[in-house]
Amino acid sequence: VAKRLEKFKTTIFTQMSSLAIKHGAINLGQGFPNFDGPEFVKEAAIQAIKDGKNQYARGYGVPDLSSAIAERFKKDTGLVVDPEKEITVTSGCTEAIAATMLGLINPGDEVILFAPFYDSYEATLSMAGAKIKCITLRPPDFAVPIHELKSAITQDTRAVLINTPHNPTGKMFTREELSTIASLCIENDVLVFTDEVYDKLAFEMDHISLASLPGMYERTVTLNSLGKTFSLTGWKIGWAIAPPHLTWGVRQAHSFLTFATSTPMQWAAAVALRAPESYYVELKRDYMAKKEILVEGLKAAGFKIFPSSGTYFVVVDHTPFGLENDVAFCEYLIKEVGVVAIPTSVFYLNPEDGKNLVRFTFCKDEGTLRAAVDRMKEKL
Amino acid sequence: VAKRLEKFKTTIFTQMSSLAIKHGAINLGQGFPNFDGPEFVKEAAIQAIKDGKNQYARGYGVPDLSSAIAERFKKDTGLVVDPEKEITVTSGCTEAIAATMLGLINPGDEVILFAPFYDSYEATLSMAGAKIKCITLRPPDFAVPIHELKSAITQDTRAVLINTPHNPTGKMFTREELSTIASLCIENDVLVFTDEVYDKLAFEMDHISLASLPGMYERTVTLNSLGKTFSLTGWKIGWAIAPPHLTWGVRQAHSFLTFATSTPMQWAAAVALRAPESYYVELKRDYMAKKEILVEGLKAAGFKIFPSSGTYFVVVDHTPFGLENDVAFCEYLIKEVGVVAIPTSVFYLNPEDGKNLVRFTFCKDEGTLRAAVDRMKEKL
Ligand SMILES: CSCCC(=O)C(=O)O
Ligand SMILES: CSCCC(=O)C(=O)O
Repeated sequence: VAKRLEKFKTTIFTQMSSLAIKHGAINLGQGFPNFDGPEFVKEAAIQAIKDGKNQYARGYGVPDLSSAIAERFKKDTGLVVDPEKEITVTSGCTEAIAATMLGLINPGDEVILFAPFYDSYEATLSMAGAKIKCITLRPPDFAVPIHELKSAITQDTRAVLINTPHNPTGKMFTREELSTIASLCIENDVLVFTDEVYDKLAFEMDHISLASLPGMYERTVTLNSLGKTFSLTGWKIGWAIAPPHLTWGVRQAHSFLTFATSTPMQWAAAVALRAPESYYVELKRDYMAKKEILVEGLKAAGFKIFPSSGTYFVVVDHTPFGLENDVAFCEYLIKEVGVVAIPTSVFYLNPEDGKNLVRFTFCKDEGTLRAAVDRMKEKL
Repeated sequence: VAKRLEKFKTTIFTQMSSLAIKHGAINLGQGFPNFDGPEFVKEAAIQAIKDGKNQYARGYGVPDLSSAIAERFKKDTGLVVDPEKEITVTSGCTEAIAATMLGLINPGDEVILFAPFYDSYEATLSMAGAKIKCITLRPPDFAVPIHELKSAITQDTRAVLINTPHNPTGKMFTREELSTIASLCIENDVLVFTDEVYDKLAFEMDHISLASLPGMYERTVTLNSLGKTFSLTGWKIGWAIAPPHLTWGVRQAHSFLTFATSTPMQWAAAVALRAPESYYVELKRDYMAKKEILVEGLKAAGFKIFPSSGTYFVVVDHTPFGLENDVAFCEYLIKEVGVVAIPTSVFYLNPEDGKNLVRFTFCKDEGTLRAAVDRMKEKL
C-alpha cells in the first residue's frame, strides 16, 4: 500500500456492517435506511434504463441533472449558478470530496478540519499531500472554538472544511459560527469546502449554506448528494457546486477519478430533485418520529444523550456502562446486546478524544428502532 | 487547480463529443455504442431497483458480483481467485486505474507507460506523484521495442502499465511480447497493471491476460469493466483483480475515492457476467461486421490504415489529405465532412508523436457507419 494510505484501516462502516451481519445484530451503525427510496424516483431510473440512457454521460453531468441541481440550489439558497460551468456531478459525495481535495489542494497546503470528521476527509487530504490542522468540537454542544480557529489560520492555510448538519454529532453550525468562519476566510483569503449532504435533515433549526453568506460563494465548494435525502444511498450520485475557477479544478480531478457517473441514475436524480416541497416536509416529519423513538429509548436505557439538531445520527456518552472505551463498548453492544453502533474515535485525528462517545443512526423503520431500543433497555 | 493537474486539458472525449453535438456530425470519436445493451442485463437492473437493492453496497463490491467476476476470470484465464480478498469493484475502470495508482504508487516511484496511452494513466500517475517513463509504440505494427523497455527499467521502477487490446491502436500484445515483459518484471521485481477492458473484442488473435503467465499473478493488477463488453458504457462498473497484498492498497484508495459503486447496477453486472458463451461469440461477430464496413470505407476514402487486432477502434494515417496535423485534420473532418474522429496526439507524452494519426471507432450501428463512410468518400 502506498504511504499516503498506510495509516488508514478498513473503514469503520465496512467493519461494523460486516459484524452486524455476522452476529445478526440490529444495525444502527452505518447510515443507510432499511426502507426503500420513493417510487417516483425508482420509476424514473427504470424508465431511463428502458429508454436506452445507458451510455457515457457528459463527464461533468447529464445536462438535465445539472439544471435540476441548479434549480434546487436556487430554491435553497437564493443563489443563481450556471449549470454548465459551476456544477460537477460525481459518484457520490465521497467522490466530490476526493475530487475537491485532489483538484484544488497542493502538497504542503494547510487545511483546517473540525473533529470529529467523516473519515474520507483525512484520507483524501493525505492523498493530496495537505497538512491537516484539526480543531476539536467538544461536547456537550460541539460549538466552534473561535479562538482556536483564529490561531490555526496562517498564510499557508488554503481551505477550511466544514460539515453541517454534522456527522457524527448532529450539530448544526449556527448562523453566528458560520458568519465568523466566513469573515475569517474572506480576511485571510481561504477557501471553504462544505459538506451538506444532510441539509434536508435539519430538525431543530434551519440549515444555512455557507455559500449563501455575503462574499462567500466565490470561495466555496458546496458538496451534496442524493442518497440521504432520497433514501437511496446505494445510487451514489453526488455533486459539487462552485464558481467556475474552482469547478475547473474539481472537474479535472473528477475526469480522471471516474470520468462520469452512472447515466440512468443521473436522469432519475434529476426527477428526484424536482420533487414537490411536500416530499421534503414529509421526509422531515418521518425522521422526527424515528428520532423520538431512538432518543427516548437511549435515555431509558441509561445513556447520556447529546442533543442532535440534524442528520440521522445521535451521539451518546457510553461511560455509564463502564466499558473502557468506545470500541470496547461497541464490541460489547454487538455481541451481548445485539445492536450495532459506530465508535467515534475513528472520527478524530487523536482517537482518545472520541473514547467516550458512540454514534447511533435512526434511519431505520420504526419497528427496527423499537426492537433495538428494547434490546438495550433489557440487556444493558 | 492543483499543480498535479495543471497540464491537463478537458479530456479529448468530452471535447469531441460536444463538438459532434454542436456540428451535427456523426460521432466516431468517443468509444460508446449508439445501440443499447442487452435486454437481459437491463431487466436485471430494473429488477434490482424494484427489489429495493438501493442502499450502500459493501464497499469493495456486492458479494454476488465479486463471485461472478471470479467465475469469469477463471473461465478466461484458468486462475482461481478469492472474491473476498482479491477483487475490488469500482465506478468504472477509470476509477480502478485511479485507485491502483493512488493505492500502490509512492511519490518518486518510476512507472513505465507505453504511448499512445489512455489519458487517465498519465493524470492519475501525476496524482500519485510517480515519475513516468514513456516508451513509444510505433506504426505500422506498434510492436514493443524490447531493448528500450529493458533499458528503461531501473531499481526505482515500481510498475509497468499495459493495455491489451490497446486503445487507441487496436494492437494486441503478442504472447512473445507478454512473456518478455513478464520475465523482465519478475527479474526486476516490478508490478504490472494491465487494463484489459477490450478483452472480449479480440478479433485477429486470442486475448492473453498477463496475470495468467507463470509467476505473474502475484505481481499483477488486472483491470476490467462491464461497459465495452455489454454495450453499457454509462453504467460505470469496473473492477481490479489482484493478490491480497495488492488488493489491500487498491481497496484503501477506492474506499476514499468513491467508497462503493451503484448497488442495483452491480447486481445487474453479476447477471451480465454469467452470460452464456454464445453472447460473447455473437458480440464478436457483430463487431467484425462493423469493423469491415469502417475499414473498407476508410480505405476507399483514401486513408492509410494500420491493422487493428482488437478493441472497437482503428487508427489511420491522415497525411494523404494534406492537413498539418491530427488536430487540424479532426477539425476539418468535423466541420467540412461531418464526421468526428479522435486526434491521437493527446495519447502521447510528446504530442508530436501522434500528429499523423487519428482514431475512428466502429461501435456504432451499421447505418451510421455507412453514412460516415459515405461522407468521407464524398467529401475528403
Ligand atoms: C460510506 S458511509 C457514509 C457516511 C455514512 O453513511 C455514515 O457515516 O454512516
Ligand atoms: C471516457 S472515454 C473512455 C475510453 C473510451 O471510450 C475512448 O477512448 O473513447
